[in-house]
Amino acid sequence: MNTLGNLFKITTCGESHGGAIAVIIDGAPPNISISAEEIQQELDRRRPGQSSLTTPRHERDQVHLLSGIFEGKTTGTPILLLAYNEDMRPEDYQALKNLYRPSHADITYEKKYGFRDFRGGGRASARETWARVAAGAIAKKYLQQQFQIEILSYVQQVGTLCSTIDPNTVSREAIERHPLRCPDERIVPQMTDLIHAVQEEGDSLGGVIQGVLRGVPAGLGAPVFDKLSADLGKAMLGINAVKGFEIGSGFAGASLRGSQHNDSFFLKDGKIAYATNHAGGILGGISTGENILFRVAFKPVSTIAKEQKTLTIDHQEVSLRAQGRHDPCVLPRAVPIVDAMAALVLMDHCLLQKAQNL
Amino acid sequence: MNTLGNLFKITTCGESHGGAIAVIIDGAPPNISISAEEIQQELDRRRPGQSSLTTPRHERDQVHLLSGIFEGKTTGTPILLLAYNEDMRPEDYQALKNLYRPSHADITYEKKYGFRDFRGGGRASARETWARVAAGAIAKKYLQQQFQIEILSYVQQVGTLCSTIDPNTVSREAIERHPLRCPDERIVPQMTDLIHAVQEEGDSLGGVIQGVLRGVPAGLGAPVFDKLSADLGKAMLGINAVKGFEIGSGFAGASLRGSQHNDSFFLKDGKIAYATNHAGGILGGISTGENILFRVAFKPVSTIAKEQKTLTIDHQEVSLRAQGRHDPCVLPRAVPIVDAMAALVLMDHCLLQKAQNL
Amino acid sequence: MNTLGNLFKITTCGESHGGAIAVIIDGAPPNISISAEEIQQELDRRRPGQSSLTTPRHERDQVHLLSGIFEGKTTGTPILLLAYNEDMRPEDYQALKNLYRPSHADITYEKKYGFRDFRGGGRASARETWARVAAGAIAKKYLQQQFQIEILSYVQQVGTLCSTIDPNTVSREAIERHPLRCPDERIVPQMTDLIHAVQEEGDSLGGVIQGVLRGVPAGLGAPVFDKLSADLGKAMLGINAVKGFEIGSGFAGASLRGSQHNDSFFLKDGKIAYATNHAGGILGGISTGENILFRVAFKPVSTIAKEQKTLTIDHQEVSLRAQGRHDPCVLPRAVPIVDAMAALVLMDHCLLQKAQNL
Amino acid sequence: MNTLGNLFKITTCGESHGGAIAVIIDGAPPNISISAEEIQQELDRRRPGQSSLTTPRHERDQVHLLSGIFEGKTTGTPILLLAYNEDMRPEDYQALKNLYRPSHADITYEKKYGFRDFRGGGRASARETWARVAAGAIAKKYLQQQFQIEILSYVQQVGTLCSTIDPNTVSREAIERHPLRCPDERIVPQMTDLIHAVQEEGDSLGGVIQGVLRGVPAGLGAPVFDKLSADLGKAMLGINAVKGFEIGSGFAGASLRGSQHNDSFFLKDGKIAYATNHAGGILGGISTGENILFRVAFKPVSTIAKEQKTLTIDHQEVSLRAQGRHDPCVLPRAVPIVDAMAALVLMDHCLLQKAQNL
Repeated sequence: MNTLGNLFKITTCGESHGGAIAVIIDGAPPNISISAEEIQQELDRRRPGQSSLTTPRHERDQVHLLSGIFEGKTTGTPILLLAYNEDMRPEDYQALKNLYRPSHADITYEKKYGFRDFRGGGRASARETWARVAAGAIAKKYLQQQFQIEILSYVQQVGTLCSTIDPNTVSREAIERHPLRCPDERIVPQMTDLIHAVQEEGDSLGGVIQGVLRGVPAGLGAPVFDKLSADLGKAMLGINAVKGFEIGSGFAGASLRGSQHNDSFFLKDGKIAYATNHAGGILGGISTGENILFRVAFKPVSTIAKEQKTLTIDHQEVSLRAQGRHDPCVLPRAVPIVDAMAALVLMDHCLLQKAQNL
Repeated sequence: MNTLGNLFKITTCGESHGGAIAVIIDGAPPNISISAEEIQQELDRRRPGQSSLTTPRHERDQVHLLSGIFEGKTTGTPILLLAYNEDMRPEDYQALKNLYRPSHADITYEKKYGFRDFRGGGRASARETWARVAAGAIAKKYLQQQFQIEILSYVQQVGTLCSTIDPNTVSREAIERHPLRCPDERIVPQMTDLIHAVQEEGDSLGGVIQGVLRGVPAGLGAPVFDKLSADLGKAMLGINAVKGFEIGSGFAGASLRGSQHNDSFFLKDGKIAYATNHAGGILGGISTGENILFRVAFKPVSTIAKEQKTLTIDHQEVSLRAQGRHDPCVLPRAVPIVDAMAALVLMDHCLLQKAQNL
Repeated sequence: MNTLGNLFKITTCGESHGGAIAVIIDGAPPNISISAEEIQQELDRRRPGQSSLTTPRHERDQVHLLSGIFEGKTTGTPILLLAYNEDMRPEDYQALKNLYRPSHADITYEKKYGFRDFRGGGRASARETWARVAAGAIAKKYLQQQFQIEILSYVQQVGTLCSTIDPNTVSREAIERHPLRCPDERIVPQMTDLIHAVQEEGDSLGGVIQGVLRGVPAGLGAPVFDKLSADLGKAMLGINAVKGFEIGSGFAGASLRGSQHNDSFFLKDGKIAYATNHAGGILGGISTGENILFRVAFKPVSTIAKEQKTLTIDHQEVSLRAQGRHDPCVLPRAVPIVDAMAALVLMDHCLLQKAQNL
Repeated sequence: MNTLGNLFKITTCGESHGGAIAVIIDGAPPNISISAEEIQQELDRRRPGQSSLTTPRHERDQVHLLSGIFEGKTTGTPILLLAYNEDMRPEDYQALKNLYRPSHADITYEKKYGFRDFRGGGRASARETWARVAAGAIAKKYLQQQFQIEILSYVQQVGTLCSTIDPNTVSREAIERHPLRCPDERIVPQMTDLIHAVQEEGDSLGGVIQGVLRGVPAGLGAPVFDKLSADLGKAMLGINAVKGFEIGSGFAGASLRGSQHNDSFFLKDGKIAYATNHAGGILGGISTGENILFRVAFKPVSTIAKEQKTLTIDHQEVSLRAQGRHDPCVLPRAVPIVDAMAALVLMDHCLLQKAQNL
């Protein structure tokens, strides 16, 4: 269904080319200070057309606050955030009406619903992530205010180019310094050149986003199905184009021995500290209080300007080449989406922990 | 909480050393033929003490069917499956009562609940997975009977040793041929030797399990949060010791170009077929009908027989060395758990698809 | 929270005097034909200002379809229906800002949220029911098309005046003939006179709505918590001003003997039929296939034009007398809300029954 | 499905004549002191065979605590409570195997599941309520310890005989003084005589249970669907044989004018108090802090020892007369079930209120 969360519950709606994209946020505690400007600021990080590195499509994507916020504060009742769809050019999609684009959801969407929303992919469009970023802005504000939790993510890999910067010390300023949202100044020029080159070729690039959550109190998460790592994983794997998720040591940890991987304890200023953090801040599904570290793999975007062969719904072979709106690398714009998903998961677990402990 | 699923909903309970481990399965359609023997057969694949490769701890783990099954068939009402805890030696845990084992959930469990279940980890114990395998056996049976869905997984990597066998063609017989549950006969001897050597050293190994789901009908899953890939990811990341999950091309896919990664269509026997399957059988969160391929990374088990330094709850430094029950490699026994989790996720999505389509 | 249903799930938002009232409907099967006009028609039955019998407040309450419907059909994705708030005169509420209106939710709302939404009651306003009627229109359409289910309700009692008409044979035409929505022509003039007289006095009236659901297939509902009767009861008790709910024989049935109350079977045209229907169409929580009959008790509306003494938030005694917008009897406008709630409950159970049966 | 609650979630299982009746309680906060004796004490109030007024069927119904409780306290993990089925005489049911008992769920159960559990009604058996009372005992303990909430209910009406005692002042001692669980000593002898007389005739009686919840903090419940009154109503309507529910003024309130029904405020010891409580302790779906007062109507039990005509599954007319186990009036044993359901609903709303408020 279209709902995420149990206590801080968001329900999104809206197709790429319908009337609007919207989200109802149910369960936001009353009295959180939040303004349209704060939400818009996060949304602008996700907005198409920010720089030469992303899609040139322009959307203002202005947020409208239609319920649940009164005199600058949440009221405890459900919050409706909405953006009207503009820049709709349905004629752009006429050409696609009768064919299946390779590696798009056209064919599976049709199998599921017995119906084809050819107008930009319907719900499969990444436009839906607007709603997640809008809702995430409120979660982020609460987590920051109540617990000083800091949520950051950045582009760590583009194609085969990798940054080796330490996620534990990275700052939001460093991330936002360049439109690429990679805080590693040594590799940014190479990544930028690569993206421009691939764009010229009409092709696209994948990559990896690194996330770090600082200041998360110990005790969030559950020992069985609803491990904090499992809920983060589901949230990230629910983002379009994501093919992999790892926490802490991840796939590399599978090659280590127990004696290497175990994070030993020591005393630091009279408190228990961890010598290493292979766990990635989560042990047995529950937060340790250390930084939560995770990585998210994105495949290259499917829409390319290179000619591809494909099939029509009537099984005819045709040639396809994206017109105009080709985005060579979605990663910079995916950063605020990763942030938002992390905020939504943490928010839900924070409220659950409040409910269930004496 | 302790529930997985929406329409085929399992709720598990039981600590490592309480009275019993149990599961209530709610939402199983009536009239599925299932016997205690069939469930036990899956449970025996997970049972400790199967071979020299796993923990020597012995548990019969016999399943008791206490409700929801009548005259060999499900009744449509909730099914209670239960195993009494035997082989409990609480005295084994007295030594652990006041210390935090490195990379175990002892410390986070205590932070969450304000309470310490020192008897083998309480709910953090992998003993809880008994309940998942028991429930999964019923899901597997239904999926096989109704849709001829085949669910397989196997050990693909142990430490740094990798099998390169093709998951598309592997058989259950090949997997079960060796207690290691790796179908690649060329690498099994090396893996076995490695496990025995590491066991001698008192250390442990991680690895990777490859899963393949065959015959899944197209149309399962949803385009937004509840992507089939996201639900599989959450299910796998909810297994103890799992640090990573990838679907299809996964992390490797992040390095490819769009023109390489896109799976093109062609006609085969008058039907649309996929030339490659980088998607791993799921496009836009919805199954394509192709094989679903995923990989799950396990860290090395934290309990080792090597001496480790750690801290007591009173912040004293102590030495720790596991006595007796050391399991050098959990992967062979994790295979039926991966199978079960995949079955539970597919089952839930199958019922949802039945509900929501005309 | 603000969600009703499990498979046909509606989430509503919007305060009386915020930007909009809206509902997201998640889980509507694809391919249901539905137009804005059909939804508006149900909404117009609920609209204030329809006749001299209700509040003179005017709201156009026009529905906007912003997602999930394409070319006149549901797409299977979430549907957003929205009405902008008009006719807002916040100045009307300034006088109420600092006092507690008797038998309104002002005081409990403040206790819950630590916050006062004095603008017409916030979420406690009956304006929220717009969203339920809008969503119910889609459920009603589906139930009618797929199962020929007919959902009717009507005003059976106003103050102490009762209709004795047979709910089994009443028609929608008879109900809609008079703005009072009572199909009993003998009692309508007395009821109308009573309402006008009470309105003159500045007072208000309660009453009872009778519901009848025809053509509901046998087998809907569940034997334990989610009895169809329990879900109907929750839905009706969730309507503002409702103080009681009964199914079939209801409170009167408590005085009967088992030998009187038991509904015996007989053969009719070779099929099993029920000689009586004290059960009200539901046995053991599951529909029998007979007409489902229930009654809903409404207290008199709390806003009256008579002078009442009350207290301010600073504990000062003050006099209060409603200005202008006094509604002597909400029952006629509550009829479409009862219809909608019944439709939403049946819809959810129909989809569940589809999911869980072979 | 078979789950009640969102944060304090109970899932029940077990048929009348399967292996066991059980409940998993998920979401109980850690550190609640609770013993098997305390739970058993509540269960004994529900137990068949307590007095000459109820069914002579004997069940020990001993509770087994199989998880989630350690050293006399809840651990925060799921609690399994279980009773084995004894006193099973399946041969008693052979006679019923092929016929539909009037006003039992035999026929609807079969329509739903395509299957007949003739062994005492399967899940439709009131035996399932064992699980609710067991779970309710833990909720009651928590509510009493944390909030001094007192949950009471009693038999107010049997057949046409009514008690007029004031629910606001009744005590548990007065209720438990007589096995009838009616605290009104003037009417108890008449009620007792009536029950014995009806039992002689082989017939059965319905009646009404009055509930009163004292000390419930203001602010529980929600303004829309999840009104506290709506959740109490659903819980009560989910009890077998319940045909009606009313809160506060209930159906009688429908005949009053607004000026009569409105509960006015006054100052008492410097605090705001309510002059009357027609609301029944809930305004706009949210608790006021006043006593919560509700009534539950039970139909006469369907199993009677009088001869009745009915039909077999093959449409043959047959005569039916209950053998042995005839219960003339279920109300005394329903009292602890009403208590339990009220406790479960309050518990869930208490935890939700903790989660959602700053």
